[in-house]
Amino acid sequence: MNSDEFNALLIGRFQPFHNGHLEVIRTILRDCDYLTIGIGSAQYSHTFENPFTAGERHLMISRSLKEEGVQNCYLVPIVDINRYSVWVAHVASIVPPFKAIYSNNPLTKRLFSEAGYEVRASPLFNIELYSGTEIRNRMLAGKDWRLLVPKAVATVIDEIGGEGRIKDLMKGLI
Amino acid sequence: MNSDEFNALLIGRFQPFHNGHLEVIRTILRDCDYLTIGIGSAQYSHTFENPFTAGERHLMISRSLKEEGVQNCYLVPIVDINRYSVWVAHVASIVPPFKAIYSNNPLTKRLFSEAGYEVRASPLFNIELYSGTEIRNRMLAGKDWRLLVPKAVATVIDEIGGEGRIKDLMKGLI
Amino acid sequence: MNSDEFNALLIGRFQPFHNGHLEVIRTILRDCDYLTIGIGSAQYSHTFENPFTAGERHLMISRSLKEEGVQNCYLVPIVDINRYSVWVAHVASIVPPFKAIYSNNPLTKRLFSEAGYEVRASPLFNIELYSGTEIRNRMLAGKDWRLLVPKAVATVIDEIGGEGRIKDLMKGLI
Amino acid sequence: MNSDEFNALLIGRFQPFHNGHLEVIRTILRDCDYLTIGIGSAQYSHTFENPFTAGERHLMISRSLKEEGVQNCYLVPIVDINRYSVWVAHVASIVPPFKAIYSNNPLTKRLFSEAGYEVRASPLFNIELYSGTEIRNRMLAGKDWRLLVPKAVATVIDEIGGEGRIKDLMKGLI
Amino acid sequence: MNSDEFNALLIGRFQPFHNGHLEVIRTILRDCDYLTIGIGSAQYSHTFENPFTAGERHLMISRSLKEEGVQNCYLVPIVDINRYSVWVAHVASIVPPFKAIYSNNPLTKRLFSEAGYEVRASPLFNIELYSGTEIRNRMLAGKDWRLLVPKAVATVIDEIGGEGRIKDLMKGLI
Amino acid sequence: MNSDEFNALLIGRFQPFHNGHLEVIRTILRDCDYLTIGIGSAQYSHTFENPFTAGERHLMISRSLKEEGVQNCYLVPIVDINRYSVWVAHVASIVPPFKAIYSNNPLTKRLFSEAGYEVRASPLFNIELYSGTEIRNRMLAGKDWRLLVPKAVATVIDEIGGEGRIKDLMKGLI
Repeated sequence: MNSDEFNALLIGRFQPFHNGHLEVIRTILRDCDYLTIGIGSAQYSHTFENPFTAGERHLMISRSLKEEGVQNCYLVPIVDINRYSVWVAHVASIVPPFKAIYSNNPLTKRLFSEAGYEVRASPLFNIELYSGTEIRNRMLAGKDWRLLVPKAVATVIDEIGGEGRIKDLMKGLI
Repeated sequence: MNSDEFNALLIGRFQPFHNGHLEVIRTILRDCDYLTIGIGSAQYSHTFENPFTAGERHLMISRSLKEEGVQNCYLVPIVDINRYSVWVAHVASIVPPFKAIYSNNPLTKRLFSEAGYEVRASPLFNIELYSGTEIRNRMLAGKDWRLLVPKAVATVIDEIGGEGRIKDLMKGLI
Repeated sequence: MNSDEFNALLIGRFQPFHNGHLEVIRTILRDCDYLTIGIGSAQYSHTFENPFTAGERHLMISRSLKEEGVQNCYLVPIVDINRYSVWVAHVASIVPPFKAIYSNNPLTKRLFSEAGYEVRASPLFNIELYSGTEIRNRMLAGKDWRLLVPKAVATVIDEIGGEGRIKDLMKGLI
Repeated sequence: MNSDEFNALLIGRFQPFHNGHLEVIRTILRDCDYLTIGIGSAQYSHTFENPFTAGERHLMISRSLKEEGVQNCYLVPIVDINRYSVWVAHVASIVPPFKAIYSNNPLTKRLFSEAGYEVRASPLFNIELYSGTEIRNRMLAGKDWRLLVPKAVATVIDEIGGEGRIKDLMKGLI
Repeated sequence: MNSDEFNALLIGRFQPFHNGHLEVIRTILRDCDYLTIGIGSAQYSHTFENPFTAGERHLMISRSLKEEGVQNCYLVPIVDINRYSVWVAHVASIVPPFKAIYSNNPLTKRLFSEAGYEVRASPLFNIELYSGTEIRNRMLAGKDWRLLVPKAVATVIDEIGGEGRIKDLMKGLI
Repeated sequence: MNSDEFNALLIGRFQPFHNGHLEVIRTILRDCDYLTIGIGSAQYSHTFENPFTAGERHLMISRSLKEEGVQNCYLVPIVDINRYSVWVAHVASIVPPFKAIYSNNPLTKRLFSEAGYEVRASPLFNIELYSGTEIRNRMLAGKDWRLLVPKAVATVIDEIGGEGRIKDLMKGLI
């Protein structure tokens, strides 16, 4: 790949996409031409940890980026595979070519580093508050979660009945 | 899904993305708010039929749409599964919610129709000329293929050494 | 599916099939023409949680229903898949067409409900006593478990050496 | 397995179940106590070779056997796996225990024979006429196929719109 | 298999191969002509429990056996599959034919015993000290682990940067 | 991998291992310290193209190399995966680290070359005569095939009844 563009990669589960993610993306884009956003654990949905399908998450992110005027992002769902020795090749084959990955996960950093990619620390923004777990817990408890996500995300969650799904899934389990 | 937006789905292999695809997308977008472009057979690459990875095809399409000023598209790689009875559910879980699919393939039409989706005929543009097979054959024969694809596609193919890959793969086989 | 028959679906692991299951089936059949009994987690066997193969469980249920004169049941082993977004399509493709599912599991209820099926609460019968876990624990402890299962189930377990299998599997682990 | 019952196994694709299959089953049951009918290639559907899902085929066979008063059969869908060295173990784990298999297929005979099972030749009944291919071709050509299948099979095919499915799938392909 | 050779099977994870494994192998080889060493959980690597790839473990064992003059061993990586009912057939198809398995694991013993193989207790050597867990913990803590493994293993771990990999993987997790 | 050893890789199906393979290995070993022999298509067996299991092929090769005094080889079965973009990572994770691959296959050469490995042409020896297809055809036709394989291979084939297997598999098919 001889492109002059500097394309970086960021992988998250985005359950759901929130204001912290948005800030991370904005920050990274100051240093890169393009950012590929990998929607990880793409095969999972309908659990408390992973309530939303990859398609629903794609829509949340696409609309948020449009609404916020963030450009130059590629969105790609990425299915987990549990053979770490082929993980980098798996990812590299389904995302546009990239030169660096932003991550704070020790395994991810090690794997991409062994494969010869530049690894950069991912910026962090108030990770106790801007957290998927926090948001899902608030949905379950009937507390306000809308201020933690872009307006477009709240709209998507309403359209798909996301709050009801999370409450249904946990019925009788808590 | 109660959105007022009308999102349609189009699935292709895009080996590579060409001017015919671009015209199909432009035509469909006259009737829809958003179009999800599914990059099919996403797991395949490095064969004559499927030379380019899903990530390379993602880049070809993304850059072409930007270059041509085509907006309101979602790109999603879609891995083939060979159980047709779950194919629609598989697709529906990884793409943003959609209301209609554009297709001329009898199997695709039947499956989405049985699942309750609206099925529309996909527009066609000079399918002998604007054809992945034609383009790959021209690459192999050293003939001009660049006039059949958006400029951005030719650039990506050059960046990844696509012509050399196709010639190498067929060495001694033809 | 335009059949006049009302076919319902019930999914369980049946490790092993017991008197509680039998009562549930009898009760459901008062309201349905046919009941498909899905033998879930069909790929598992030889663990304490899932000691019996799908085939062994099929035999337990088939013989019990015959012995007890219960008719109008279809038996189908169902392999787990861990993508909940395609779970309903997976099940629907391997069982005879059905109109309602009996379940008390929040996830199952949510998934089939999202897919447009009627979901009914499954009847319950003394679930502390009539429980696979209770029966397996009794086998392990050498206590009487035979009174909790149909006679045909005890016969199958004897024929396949089921008690010895469970004891062997837990040797040194408890 | 120390049962006194003699259970045999027969595997077919049953696309669809026809009068020839019915005669084979009746003939085998003269020599066995129970017959397990394995519905092979269970994962396939919606192609010309395999138009019907495993669940639809289960219903065809169940209703036919009931209508014809054939008893003592177990029905089990069997998903293909393409590793022949584990095929017998795969089958044996999902069907009730059996002592012999009826087959005329060289590979099936060899595999079960290597694994120590008794292999018997399957009886044959007018295999040019009573053939899934013949029936599907007649459906496609609008010729009479109903006389080749049990009445219950024709009813199921009508209920699921089977003729229309086959014609749709082949539209433009023949 | 009518060979006069007595070939036995031993399966381990060998994360990493250590002096205890070496003694087990030497002891078994006094009673057998050949020993197949199955490298289990072959698909895993880059975790604290399974830091080394199957290929790296293959090299550790091959070089150690050569260095120590141990002959008559076959090495075969074995990928885990989670269907125990086909586990024996899976293993038997990828290793040279064998007559007995050495194991102390209840599940392994039960499965191979049900399949008709001779099962022998595996010899044990100071299992607190010669333990993969102990060695990995020492690597992490910066303590001496080299005295617990054959010299060839230490060399391989140095060549692949094994200590750094384990420390990296656990960074921030302990 | 900083080893001073030069380890190369050779992948074949070895159905069966023959004198041509043996010569290739001997020739390669003149230029390398160690050679990893990958037993490809490891999951297949019991077809005319792939009659022998990976384990049987492992035994054929192991005994032949011992008999012929060929040292410094590592044997590794390699299961096919049909995603070429991860093929090199898949192979690299299950074989000992290597620096070059010997191959004449255009796809294999291209894939390993893209991944940065040295690719060398594999030596060839009378490929019409020393050919798996030729040997299997001779077995089927009852002609002499023993002169084309090492003595150890003929012994293994006799021990496992290999000729009978091939004839059985083709019964009625030719």
